[in-house]
Parts: sequence; C-alpha cells; structure tokens
Amino acid sequence: MTVIKTIEKPKLKNPIFVEGLPGIGNIGRVAAGYLISELKAKKFAQLHSEHFFPFVMVHDEYRLHLLKNEFYYVKAKKKNQRDIIILTGDCQSLSPNGHYEVATQILEYVEKLGVKDLITIGGLATGELEDKPKTIGAVTDEKVKKKYNKFDIEFDAGERVGYIVGASGLLLGLGKEMGMDGLCLLGETSGFPIVTDPKAAESVLDNLTKILNIDIDMGKLESKVKEMEKFIKKVEDLQKKALNQIAREEKAPVKGKEQLRYIG
Amino acid sequence: MTVIKTIEKPKLKNPIFVEGLPGIGNIGRVAAGYLISELKAKKFAQLHSEHFFPFVMVHDEYRLHLLKNEFYYVKAKKKNQRDIIILTGDCQSLSPNGHYEVATQILEYVEKLGVKDLITIGGLATGELEDKPKTIGAVTDEKVKKKYNKFDIEFDAGERVGYIVGASGLLLGLGKEMGMDGLCLLGETSGFPIVTDPKAAESVLDNLTKILNIDIDMGKLESKVKEMEKFIKKVEDLQKKALNQIAREEKAPVKGKEQLRYIG
Amino acid sequence: MTVIKTIEKPKLKNPIFVEGLPGIGNIGRVAAGYLISELKAKKFAQLHSEHFFPFVMVHDEYRLHLLKNEFYYVKAKKKNQRDIIILTGDCQSLSPNGHYEVATQILEYVEKLGVKDLITIGGLATGELEDKPKTIGAVTDEKVKKKYNKFDIEFDAGERVGYIVGASGLLLGLGKEMGMDGLCLLGETSGFPIVTDPKAAESVLDNLTKILNIDIDMGKLESKVKEMEKFIKKVEDLQKKALNQIAREEKAPVKGKEQLRYIG
Amino acid sequence: MTVIKTIEKPKLKNPIFVEGLPGIGNIGRVAAGYLISELKAKKFAQLHSEHFFPFVMVHDEYRLHLLKNEFYYVKAKKKNQRDIIILTGDCQSLSPNGHYEVATQILEYVEKLGVKDLITIGGLATGELEDKPKTIGAVTDEKVKKKYNKFDIEFDAGERVGYIVGASGLLLGLGKEMGMDGLCLLGETSGFPIVTDPKAAESVLDNLTKILNIDIDMGKLESKVKEMEKFIKKVEDLQKKALNQIAREEKAPVKGKEQLRYIG
Repeated sequence: MTVIKTIEKPKLKNPIFVEGLPGIGNIGRVAAGYLISELKAKKFAQLHSEHFFPFVMVHDEYRLHLLKNEFYYVKAKKKNQRDIIILTGDCQSLSPNGHYEVATQILEYVEKLGVKDLITIGGLATGELEDKPKTIGAVTDEKVKKKYNKFDIEFDAGERVGYIVGASGLLLGLGKEMGMDGLCLLGETSGFPIVTDPKAAESVLDNLTKILNIDIDMGKLESKVKEMEKFIKKVEDLQKKALNQIAREEKAPVKGKEQLRYIG
Repeated sequence: MTVIKTIEKPKLKNPIFVEGLPGIGNIGRVAAGYLISELKAKKFAQLHSEHFFPFVMVHDEYRLHLLKNEFYYVKAKKKNQRDIIILTGDCQSLSPNGHYEVATQILEYVEKLGVKDLITIGGLATGELEDKPKTIGAVTDEKVKKKYNKFDIEFDAGERVGYIVGASGLLLGLGKEMGMDGLCLLGETSGFPIVTDPKAAESVLDNLTKILNIDIDMGKLESKVKEMEKFIKKVEDLQKKALNQIAREEKAPVKGKEQLRYIG
Repeated sequence: MTVIKTIEKPKLKNPIFVEGLPGIGNIGRVAAGYLISELKAKKFAQLHSEHFFPFVMVHDEYRLHLLKNEFYYVKAKKKNQRDIIILTGDCQSLSPNGHYEVATQILEYVEKLGVKDLITIGGLATGELEDKPKTIGAVTDEKVKKKYNKFDIEFDAGERVGYIVGASGLLLGLGKEMGMDGLCLLGETSGFPIVTDPKAAESVLDNLTKILNIDIDMGKLESKVKEMEKFIKKVEDLQKKALNQIAREEKAPVKGKEQLRYIG
Repeated sequence: MTVIKTIEKPKLKNPIFVEGLPGIGNIGRVAAGYLISELKAKKFAQLHSEHFFPFVMVHDEYRLHLLKNEFYYVKAKKKNQRDIIILTGDCQSLSPNGHYEVATQILEYVEKLGVKDLITIGGLATGELEDKPKTIGAVTDEKVKKKYNKFDIEFDAGERVGYIVGASGLLLGLGKEMGMDGLCLLGETSGFPIVTDPKAAESVLDNLTKILNIDIDMGKLESKVKEMEKFIKKVEDLQKKALNQIAREEKAPVKGKEQLRYIG
C-alpha cells in the first residue's frame, strides 16, 4: 500500500525530476527544500506508504498529518530552462523492500508526466570536517556523464563509496531499467551526528542551479536551513523514539517461574 | 489478510466513530470498554489480522478465540445525540506495515456505514504521577479544532509529544486523506509500568461524554477498570511471553565444532 | 506463496482433522507420526511455503526436499469410526504473519474435503518433570467441551497458560470463524531442552484414540519416538544453524575508518 | 516485485541450467563466472528484486546499476554437448521469503525456455584447510544420482551437512516440485573468512565440465578468480556497510528525560 494522491495535474513539457529526501547530513532534503522555497514551486501531489513509520506527526500545536513525500513543480521561465518536478518529504522507507516499492511507484507516476531525466541528491559521509565540500557524481550511463562533464562534479563516487543507499540510489537504478537518464549529486559531509549540513547543500545547489539554468539567491540558505533543521530533527527524533517504543514493548521481560509455562 | 466479519449490519445515521485500543496506560482501551458497558453498546462486527500475534487466547477456563478488534454501536436516544460506533479490542498490529493495513481496512469499513467524524483515544506518558491528569488534543484540521474548542482539551500535543503512534494516529492521518474529520484525545499518564490508568481515562471520558452529549455514571469506573485490568494484563503478558518464546526458539545456540559445517 | 499440491484426491465422509506439527516437546509431531504409522495412513497432499526456512533438507545420504507439511488420510474401518485426515510435517512458519497464512490455506483446503471437526495437538511446558503427564484441553465453544467431557482431559488451559501459539492455536481460532468445531489437546511436558517427550505423547494419544474409536498398539511408541527423534532433532538443529548463518552474514563487522564512508 | 527483463530471447534445445551465485567461499559465483568467461557465454536476461539490498552499486568510477542476477547462454558446439543457461549475479535475497520468491521466478522463466535439468553450485564449509577439496553431491531423486554416479562426486551431503541454504537449495527443491531433475555440487572449503576459494571452485569445475562435455582451460582460473574477488568482496562489504548503516539509524539512542514522553 503506497498511495500517490494528485492534488493538481500539472501540464509539463519534458520535465526534469529532482529528488531530495532525508539522508546523510540531510543534504538532499535541505537542497530540495531551499529550491522549492526560492522557486516558489507548487505542490501538486503527495505520497504515503505502509513502509513509512506507523505514526502521524503533530506539527504546529495540534494539527496532525501522515508521514509523506511531496511532489512540487516549477514551470520554465526562460528559453534555456526546463520544467522541473521536485520530490521531497518527511522520511524514507522503514523496510528494505519498501525502498524498492516506493521508488517504483514514484517513477511510474513521474513517467506519466513525461519525465526522462532524473537528478537525485544525497550526502557522502567522509568522517572529516570539510572546509570546501565537493560534489561527487554518479550516473546511469556513460553518455549521461558526458552531458554533465562541464560542471564542477567529481565523477569518482565508485572509488570513494561504491554504493548509494535508498531513494537516491534506487530511483536511478530502477529508472535506468525504464530507459531514463540519471545523475546523482553527493555533497561531501562529515557524517553523523550532524543533522543538516548547509555547506554541503550549497556545493550541490551550485551545481544544480547551473544544470537547471536557474538563478537563486544563496544568501538565505544558512538561515533557511536552520529553520528547516528544527522540523527535520523532530522527525528524526520521533523515528528514534518510535523505534525505542516498539523495542521496549517487544522486549519487556516477563519475570519468574511463569516464564516457563507456555504452549506450542 | 485482514478480515472484518459482520455479525449484524446496523442502520446508522451520520454515526461518529470512537476508537479505544490497547496502548500507553490503556487509556483508550478502558475508556472505550467503560463506554460500551455503560451504554450497553451492541457488538456488530469483528476484525482479525495476520498482523496480530500468531496465537489464540484461552479465556475463561477453556474457550479459545483469535486476537481481535471489535465494533460496537449505540443508537442516539435524544435529539442532541448521535449514533456512535465504538472500536475496541485485544491488541494492535505486531508489524509496522500492519498498522497501516489494519487502519485502512477499518476506515473503509466504517466509511460504508456513513462515518465522517473520528475520535481516537490514547495516553500521553509524562514520566510523572499526575494528580489531575489533563486531556491533550490533536486534530486533522483547523476547523475541527474550532468545533472542539469549548471542551476542556489542551491543544498542545504538537509541542508536548509531536507524534501519535499506531491506530490512534493512523486512523486520523489516513482518515484525513479520505476526507474525514478527526480528533485525538490523549490522557496524561505517568507511563510504563502502569497497566491501566483510571484517572487518565476519567479525564478523557469527561470530555468524550460532553462531546457525545451522553450521560454516564462515572462511579463504577474504578471498579470496572480493575475488572478489565486482569484481562488486559493477561494479553500484554502473553504477547511478551510469545515474543520471548519466538526469541528463544530463534536464538537457541548450537554448540561445538559442528557449527562450522554448513552450506551456502 | 503457500502451495498445497494434491497427490491423490481422497473421497472422505465427514472426516475429522488431526494436526500434529513440531512444537514444545514435539508432542503433536510424534503423536501424529505414530498415528500415521500405526494406522498405515496414506499421504495425499503436501504443502510448502515461502514462510518456512529458506533451505532444503538433505535426507538419507543425498536426496533433498523442500521443508513441508504433509496431509495423510485413513478411512473408517468400523461403524463407530470416522474418516481421519492427519497433518504433520517438518516445521512451522518462520514469520508471525506466515502462521496465519499457512493455517488459512490448510483450513480452506480441508474444508473442501468436508472437514467440520478439528483436533490439534501441542505441548504445555510446566518446567517440571511430570511423572504422570496429564492432557490439558481447550475448545472453540461450550458445546464442543460437552462433547469431549467424558474423556480424561482437564479443561483448565485458560488458567494454566492462557494462549496457544502457532498452528495448534490458529487452526482452531481461524477454523472457529469458518464455523468449525475444534479441540486442542496439550500434553504436559517439562519443556526445553527436551526434544521429544514420549510420555506426554502417550497421554495425548490415549485420549485421541478413544475420541477416534480406534485401537493402536502403544507398545512400540517409545522405540518409534526414538526413531523419529533423530530426524526431528536434525531439522531443529538445521533451523538453528540457518539462523546462525543468516545472523553471521548480516552482522559480520566492517573494520576501520572506511566504515564512516557511506552515502544516503 | 521480482522482475526478469529479457534482453534477447535465445532459441535453445533442451538446455541444462547451471546456477552459481554468491555464497560460502563464493564457489558457485566464481565457477559460474569462469565458465561464462571461458565459454564466451552471452547475457540474455537480468533479474532484480525488492528482496535484494536497497542500494545501487557504483562500479568503475561513476556508473551505477541495481543489484542483479544475470542469465547467460551458450549453444552446444559438438554433438555430445547441450545448450547451457548459466545464472550468476551480485547477490541473493536479504529476506527469508525472498529466497522462495526469487527462486520461483527463475524456475518459471527457465521452464519456458525448455529447462528440465538443473545444476546448482555451492560451498560446504568444513572449518579446515582442504588440500584436495572434494566435490560433495545432493540430488532431487534416486534416478538423478545414477546419472551422475560416474563422476568424481561424493554423494554424502546428507550425512555431512543435511541442508542447503538459499538459491542452490531452493532452486532444486522447488524445481523438483515442477518435475525437474536437479544436482547440487558443493565444493569443500574452510569457510569464513575466505572470500573466494579457487581450489574448491576447480574441484567443482572439473566435474561440471565433464558433465557438460566441455573443454575449458583451467590455467587462468586462479588469476581470473583474483580479478573477480575484488568485485565480490566489494559487494559483500557494501552489504555489511548497508546493514551497519540501517542498524545505526535504527538504534541511535535518544537521550534525556524527553525519552519518557511519547504517545500510544
């Protein structure tokens, strides 16, 4: 049960798809969030899934909502720009097979909207503080790399990490099987326990805006990321608490001799 | 495989749905149980699911039954009252995705009976003994809050906990997506290891009876809760024992050198 | 994916269903095995499931087979006897929800063969060595108890254990929902680490043969159980080894600084 | 969701199916890999599954792909040879039930290509360094053993290990139920932490080439295995890292008093 609910069906011309969901350093999440805010992108669909955590968020003071991923769009404003679909959200799947199911549903949905090009955003944990974090790249195909060669992307993800976990990886891997071209942008970041890394997000956004031929004001990034961080940290903490609660309920011991009396 | 078996199909007019299943302090479970008992609500359907624990209960001396959730109804007796559906039961899902499946099945079932308004009941663990436990609220929407503003509910669940786990949360989150209005009532309680908290249930029942315009005698609550506690504790203990048994079977070690001899 | 393959479709008249699968003390497994052997029951179907362990057994020296449950039948030979279906097998489900799926498939299969009465056999672990182990009973309904009141069964399972895990429980709980009558016979046994308990099996078989109006020679029980024990222990050990192997593969640590380099 | 994508549909005459996927000592994986390389077998299909790990590999420097199993074929070149289908790949299932699903899909796919004979390759961990590792065999049936009796295979797998885990076992167990004949070849190897064992693979390949009436140059085996080892080790390490990452995310503790504040 993974459901995508369409709020408004946008008419898009050869749109490019950009994904930024929570992950290492939340690079993707904050880059996508900043893009949506600066471009005034419009929400047109949302996804929820039985593979997400089994709780609802209570945001603000009292309003609750399901954990969800959200689809936004922006129409091209200039000749050298393209229509853009941006996917962001509260969380990724809790279960391994859920990652495959959710990514497949997303791809089938955006394919119907004409998507042939995918860009996913993630973080690469280096274990060290990076003064000038670089953007590391991976692609679905040789020809895709050629297209993005002119940007400031180091195409050595294979040597440096060798794999991409979750949505940022599977959307490209499954998309490739559907004939789509894909690029993954990974911002170098120190890794846990950093919640959000604006510097790494900036490095990725620099490249992304050039790829998309758009102009956004980077001046507000740091303050905007601070704003987002509160909510992102909240979801992260709640997921940990929910897991703790599940664990406590499941593992609470039963004492005494009675423990030996059971049936099979 | 989640099955709802109808025993009798009630004819209801714009019924309001009230959920009280086991959880923190079993506030929902005992509030719903007391309501059913005082209103002489009639059982009309029951649900079992592969997502519940894989055992049967032996209640009384020798009669066994599947773990189940049960649907009850009460017809309005006065002009300012509404027909009510009450859901209670032995347990919630064992698996995370099961919570989504069971909640979806429940909502689709009661939607066909005309339900547009949902009230779910849970506990909010404060870690402290509460002399006068309050009722904390969360809603699906601003307009729902306005409707319930006049009652003695503190609408600050977002600040105090930020999430609602399991049926009490997902019924509202998923119901909202189906166009239903929902209110969650959380009774303040100290939390584990308390089995049932009658005081917190009373606080919630005070509000609930006012919302439903019904009059019930609260005098028997404490003794009734004591009665229910025995059964609730039994199910809780059995779930823990079942988990221990599963764990023991899975983890029993194999000794000696033979351990090295396997195939792959 | 739970598959029941029919080898031969028997014509049965109002057959009674008897289940004995591996469990505590393997009471059910050895009682069913001895019954099959003494009555020369004929195998007519077998079941395998994705919910069983993901390995094949190599029995004898070199022949392999899937883990399976097996259906046998015996036709009534005298007027006061009934046709009998006996279910036994290598194992039960590995996953909690698998128990529900496998039990449902079994019930739907035997319902088509005319089954309305179910008897399941299990063990009740007392934690003590039992000199004269008793048979403890549980039923789906009051009227079923009356039917079996005359036998040497103590109907106090509810007080002594309160739940029945796995196939012996769910076949009756789910069967009850399908309108079937069910009796569970539990042989008192000390519990782990005993592999098979012939004494407890004898107590249960004494009752079972009286219920079924059949006469079997109990003299070979102990030696037959010894024979069966070898195979039963092998499956148990292999399941533990398989779990150990899965655990080892999953938990093998990765050392050094490289551990910090991953992507999300 | 297990998907097999056909790249080219080969016309094969009574093909024999050979499986070699990662496992103990990677005997099957390297034997199949060497066979593919020496016979210049042609890839004609590939499989991916939600039961594999939820990440993509980045091979070479920057190109990514889904974890996958691959189907190759070779046409018979001489009269006494047969067409061969070879299955190899990056990994096996992460979940127990996934093993059943993936094996079933593979069998249904190759059945349509005319496969009636199966050979699977695995390792048997002995815990000791083997100077001259032997090939141990298991079969689906007595008559299959007779067919392979003349080769240098010791048919005592039942005594020595008793079970075959994963694809090498389930392909034969499930294949047997579909009426296929199957042989499992297990190369003796010391077991963990050896990544690849060329000696054990050579023992198995000696038998396999005789069975298939093919001639391949064994001289390059050791160097070829070294080549393959790098990639195999990479996938193994990534799976471990992915599991570590999942574990770390799930288990990261939440500190302080706030931990007590949750809802149910």
